[in-house]
Amino acid sequence: MTDTPTPPWDGLILGAALATLDSDTGYGEITDGALGWRDGVLTFVGPRNALPDSPDRLAREVIEARGWITPGLVDCHTHLVFAGDRAREFELRLQGASYEAIARAGGGILSTVRATREASEDELLRQSLPRARALLADGATTLEIKSGYGLDFDSERKMLRVARRVGEVLGVTVRTTYLAAHALPPEYKERADDYIDAACDWLPRLHAEGLVDAVDAFCEGIGFTPAQTRRMFEAARALGLPVKLHADQLSDLGGAALAAEFSGLSADHVEYTSEDSVRAMAAHGTVAVLLPGAFHVLRETKLPPLDAFRVHGVPMAVATDCNPGTSPLLSMRQAMQLACTHFRLTPEEALRGATVHAAHALGLTDRGVLRVGARADFVQWQVGHPAELCYWLGGRLADAVYAGGRRIS
Amino acid sequence: MTDTPTPPWDGLILGAALATLDSDTGYGEITDGALGWRDGVLTFVGPRNALPDSPDRLAREVIEARGWITPGLVDCHTHLVFAGDRAREFELRLQGASYEAIARAGGGILSTVRATREASEDELLRQSLPRARALLADGATTLEIKSGYGLDFDSERKMLRVARRVGEVLGVTVRTTYLAAHALPPEYKERADDYIDAACDWLPRLHAEGLVDAVDAFCEGIGFTPAQTRRMFEAARALGLPVKLHADQLSDLGGAALAAEFSGLSADHVEYTSEDSVRAMAAHGTVAVLLPGAFHVLRETKLPPLDAFRVHGVPMAVATDCNPGTSPLLSMRQAMQLACTHFRLTPEEALRGATVHAAHALGLTDRGVLRVGARADFVQWQVGHPAELCYWLGGRLADAVYAGGRRIS
Ligand SMILES: [Zn+2]
Ligand SMILES: [Zn+2]
Repeated sequence: MTDTPTPPWDGLILGAALATLDSDTGYGEITDGALGWRDGVLTFVGPRNALPDSPDRLAREVIEARGWITPGLVDCHTHLVFAGDRAREFELRLQGASYEAIARAGGGILSTVRATREASEDELLRQSLPRARALLADGATTLEIKSGYGLDFDSERKMLRVARRVGEVLGVTVRTTYLAAHALPPEYKERADDYIDAACDWLPRLHAEGLVDAVDAFCEGIGFTPAQTRRMFEAARALGLPVKLHADQLSDLGGAALAAEFSGLSADHVEYTSEDSVRAMAAHGTVAVLLPGAFHVLRETKLPPLDAFRVHGVPMAVATDCNPGTSPLLSMRQAMQLACTHFRLTPEEALRGATVHAAHALGLTDRGVLRVGARADFVQWQVGHPAELCYWLGGRLADAVYAGGRRIS
Repeated sequence: MTDTPTPPWDGLILGAALATLDSDTGYGEITDGALGWRDGVLTFVGPRNALPDSPDRLAREVIEARGWITPGLVDCHTHLVFAGDRAREFELRLQGASYEAIARAGGGILSTVRATREASEDELLRQSLPRARALLADGATTLEIKSGYGLDFDSERKMLRVARRVGEVLGVTVRTTYLAAHALPPEYKERADDYIDAACDWLPRLHAEGLVDAVDAFCEGIGFTPAQTRRMFEAARALGLPVKLHADQLSDLGGAALAAEFSGLSADHVEYTSEDSVRAMAAHGTVAVLLPGAFHVLRETKLPPLDAFRVHGVPMAVATDCNPGTSPLLSMRQAMQLACTHFRLTPEEALRGATVHAAHALGLTDRGVLRVGARADFVQWQVGHPAELCYWLGGRLADAVYAGGRRIS
């Protein structure tokens, strides 16, 4: 507590148990805890009876709480900015329509591209905000948002601008990821290399506008090749931008190893990642981002190499992958539930995956734990045990959500 | 519209699309619809431009809405009254503990029985209400609630009384089901027949207090035998009470056929139900209640005989099975999502399963569709298509929930 700034603090919340995650194992539990903050940063984390003075003299606002407080959740992989939805396509699929029939009926990712291109920036924001609000209401305080439904300069720019505006409107950190290499737009049909040239060309201009925090690609048989991905990554490196990758979701193209070679922040999906690639990730500090929503919706059966991640010390994050085609998830809790059910993560692994490891997958080290000096991002949950966050499907468990010391939900 | 009572009505809601389900196939869609009600019953269902007068002269309250309106959801299978939770057991299981180890650590269904027996009636209500409120907030307007964690006369009575109080406090219909034959209490160890004698003996006394709407049992290798179930059913029949059954979940003991033989309202779970049993259900109008939450949590792989239900015209309902051990579901939408994902129901089947067929599984014919004369139970959803109700995981899509014409969430 040597760094504790002098009171008065802005706020102090008392009485809940804390899952600080500020420990190598376990929840870092503090019963009857106290959390103080000033200027958006935690100034006290400890048991109530270790407070240096009576609560009323320590903070302008003192809140009595119950249940548990965890770090704010970090959703480190979303595509939540898009126009339209694909519920009708979901229905057609369940009625037995083939992917070809759906594409003929105007479905598939290109239907989202079309709708996103057509929407104005304000309209795109209007459609995206409810999804971001849903994530916040269920405990998220930091969001990553990718481009990738624009696939031309203006539309990618529009998506990234909307992503920034989501953060401003809602008062949370948004990290943007440039994902022009998500799919091949119709105007580049059979000219994927030309499209990658264009996408590499757009990047510095968007970065100059402050719109890009990281660069991503969809490296897959039905996406872009490792060679194309490498060119995208080299364009990122030239600008000093970190990379992440949609890697090894449907087949092993060595994507996770490629991300590691570029000291990538994360390799995401990683169902088909080989143990050699896991070793490369460990060596370069690349986080494995698990996306159980897509696994669930696509009814996949190939599990990521979970034991290899554990053995080699690769941190595992969990994210919603919120997107209209394969992962219509509006809740980090539900992502954690699916991670426990489908991937057999323990609730503690899922919670670390949704907080501290997810923060690392975004290159952020100032959040994801409750610790003096960290951002005052935290959630007060109406639960008797942190495992309940991974246990219930549905319901509303978050009583109060704070980002930077300000209540946002 | 010949039955339309004279205005003024109590309320009129305008402008949303209606999924009336008042049709043999499809959603029974009415665009730019209007829904009027008086004394808790629908008085008008149709397009806005068919209203007999200007809206302000028709109803005391006129509400402009958007999105879609569906019938209120009917959760026809829950165990939501219980004390304690089993999140810690969920965690132990994911940490690799065996069922034996969990039982030794005081887990399993008997831990719920112990906590439920120990709780006072008020405490049991206090713990159960948040679960019921969560179901309502996501669109449920009718709940079935089972006993079965008491397993002695006083505790079963306490559970049923709490179930009734849940309905009174929240202003929704609660149908109670007597499920003393859920598990064998420790004091009857190795004396299952004696326990069934006792449970049959308690039934008329509880029924005389108005606490029982139906009778259920858990017919399974790890539950009660078909012969014991039959005795329970005969006790129900002697009182004129309808039956339903936890049938064929883990093995085919002919449970669904037994329920049909007693003209049961429903056979529930039914993963292992044979085609002969399906024929018997069809002949007796017994509804198949699908419980995808338990299927999901237990990672089952044996699908119910869905095509046989379709071919033989057995209506399929969908329910949460809300319970602390195998189905911690607090949302009918999430049950519908799981039914679509795991069982490949179409969104239309899932919605009928969560409304009109679920009502039939409770013997109720006055709800589950939007039709003049039906109860004014409906939900206004912030969606562009009814398939979205089965598509999203998480989020809050219900803008307003009405039961008997009164807003409850
Ligand atoms: Zn993705
Ligand atoms: Zn049940």
